[in-house]
Amino acid sequence: MSDTYAMINGGFILKNEASLFISDLSIQRGFGIFDFFRTVDHKPIFLEDHLDRFYFSASQMNMEISLAREALKKQIFELIEKNSIPDSGIRITLTGGYSEDGYTLSKPNLVITQNAFAFNKENFEKGIKLVTYDHQRQLPQIKTIDYLQAIRLQPFVKENHADDLLYHDQNMIRECPRSNFFIVTNNNEVLTAGKKILKGITRKKILELEEFNIREEEITLKDLENVKEAFVSSTTKNVLPVVKIDGKTIGNGKPGEITRRIYDKICLLKEK
Amino acid sequence: MSDTYAMINGGFILKNEASLFISDLSIQRGFGIFDFFRTVDHKPIFLEDHLDRFYFSASQMNMEISLAREALKKQIFELIEKNSIPDSGIRITLTGGYSEDGYTLSKPNLVITQNAFAFNKENFEKGIKLVTYDHQRQLPQIKTIDYLQAIRLQPFVKENHADDLLYHDQNMIRECPRSNFFIVTNNNEVLTAGKKILKGITRKKILELEEFNIREEEITLKDLENVKEAFVSSTTKNVLPVVKIDGKTIGNGKPGEITRRIYDKICLLKEK
Repeated sequence: MSDTYAMINGGFILKNEASLFISDLSIQRGFGIFDFFRTVDHKPIFLEDHLDRFYFSASQMNMEISLAREALKKQIFELIEKNSIPDSGIRITLTGGYSEDGYTLSKPNLVITQNAFAFNKENFEKGIKLVTYDHQRQLPQIKTIDYLQAIRLQPFVKENHADDLLYHDQNMIRECPRSNFFIVTNNNEVLTAGKKILKGITRKKILELEEFNIREEEITLKDLENVKEAFVSSTTKNVLPVVKIDGKTIGNGKPGEITRRIYDKICLLKEK
Repeated sequence: MSDTYAMINGGFILKNEASLFISDLSIQRGFGIFDFFRTVDHKPIFLEDHLDRFYFSASQMNMEISLAREALKKQIFELIEKNSIPDSGIRITLTGGYSEDGYTLSKPNLVITQNAFAFNKENFEKGIKLVTYDHQRQLPQIKTIDYLQAIRLQPFVKENHADDLLYHDQNMIRECPRSNFFIVTNNNEVLTAGKKILKGITRKKILELEEFNIREEEITLKDLENVKEAFVSSTTKNVLPVVKIDGKTIGNGKPGEITRRIYDKICLLKEK
């Protein structure tokens, strides 16, 4: 919407007019971190988990974030009040800042944006199709702005009649560019990679569910040939069944029973 | 200088005021490519080589650059004339463009900037100190804006009393973040990595020199223990002796004889 506001370094600005000078290290060197969470009925979902990860990412990248956590929360709530968009996605981005020589670490710029976003339950029944690709993300546990491969490969995904990528590191399954990946084995075990991935907040909530046999475990490309169900998890997708991988149908090509039960649990935690 | 101009999508703008909207994919997703060349006495050095690589990078990233090569050159020469900075560095950056959803590939933004830069011969006698780090750059042959590791590790470089990083991929020497790396063996062979690196333009000119025994060859961390000389090459550094690696002195800690001869040849090609 044209009257939606963003916040840059604590000041409101119309989102459509918000800009950064080209000396910013995000533009010069792809250097920045971010986090992304939703609001439902004006209330942030799992905010503390997202802030934990945001400050972790900043510290791992040696970025000085002068804003204390409570002050950052205050800015977030100010933006929520100003925009008055009940159901939304909020992105907090910390860039490398304006650097005189375009290289040296500088005082970061903090950009907070909000978009209307309502969770669409219909996507669940459709599920998504993935295409595998050999790529290990650098600094995987840090939520950096680096999506070079994912953006570059958008035509590749289309050519393969898929909706998204599934990265593997020389046959070890990792994650999708913006979501975590799970399989359900024929023994009803729910498995997800534990190493060299971004640890998603929805993933964390799934791992905490007690009524399933869920654990972190190395999954290989070959393991995919014999899974009962597969799904991805993310802040916007909640839990989304994977119906095809590399053109091969998973299970009967419909959302599986355990996937559906996990989805219901996660929706209970998140949605109105 | 405050009256230096930049060019964004063909239009002049004061460099200090040049900005991109925050929906640009460089800010959202670290997605962009660039190239960088020098002018000496208003003349671009090795421009065709740099443009070759720039268009190669764009095509590899699936970026649509609508501007034909001759039109891009025209913009570059317009900027050179407008700014009238005889000795400079010119950077052409192509970002992913303004993306409505912050993810989908869009029409790229082209940003051209110019900085005064004069080559400093005194740096040669001092040389530089490197510290090794295990990191394989992603998409190494494409000149993307991704310098996440290099920027993040700036404090690490300082703590190790070094000037720059030397990346190796599980003991196979690759390159520095912004320069290529060469060794001179005790048999006066000049070796540089040929795989999984960015192929620098100065590096290319060095490999074309006929009076030396130069070739691409895998170099291991262990090989560094027994080298006679080492140096790096780049557009701004030309050829710069490496006097220490991980605190260990290379040769006698002074610029070596073959390094000096290669340096002289490269300066002849580039400098007034």
